[in-house]
Amino acid sequence: MNSDLANTPAPPYFAVIFTSRRAAGDDGYSAMAERMQELASQQAGFLGVESVRGTDGVGITVSYWSSLESIRAWKAVSEHRAAQELGRSQWYESYRVRVCRVEREYGLDG
Amino acid sequence: MNSDLANTPAPPYFAVIFTSRRAAGDDGYSAMAERMQELASQQAGFLGVESVRGTDGVGITVSYWSSLESIRAWKAVSEHRAAQELGRSQWYESYRVRVCRVEREYGLDG
Repeated sequence: MNSDLANTPAPPYFAVIFTSRRAAGDDGYSAMAERMQELASQQAGFLGVESVRGTDGVGITVSYWSSLESIRAWKAVSEHRAAQELGRSQWYESYRVRVCRVEREYGLDG
Repeated sequence: MNSDLANTPAPPYFAVIFTSRRAAGDDGYSAMAERMQELASQQAGFLGVESVRGTDGVGITVSYWSSLESIRAWKAVSEHRAAQELGRSQWYESYRVRVCRVEREYGLDG
């Protein structure tokens, strides 16, 4: 997993907040999570990703995109669709996906 | 830290994505983080929060709000302002704050 803060452009742009609780066992999850991050980063409109999973099994991944259209296209990529199906049937106890428009951004640079 | 997924209402509503990298040492951080989560949950317009920090020091906290006005009001609460100042000067190596409008939500219930 990428553990850097994303270097996104000036808003507006879009974010997908994916919050999840993992089911027990790996069952190929870690390898797929890494592959999905790599594949996402190759899609048109991808701006960056931030991802953290805690020791209690709760994780938050936020990916950033230039448009709603790029988010829709990424959701429909066949290898990603197969991963989504495994996520629903095996890897996650529960999850939420929230599609957002980022209106404002500020921060402290390290 | 709360480690449940937030049970938010039907969109639209608003999210603040706070992504950070911690500086070394606790220096009162953990107690303040817990206090800020408690205080946030008492504010008008608060809808929920999800928060995870990884073992590498990167953390993501997403808080959900009914309006941009409620986000502005929370940012201005004096005890929160003091915490923000300590965050800038001591606790964080870097951070990003992204204010978003949540347009769509779906998921899998556990």
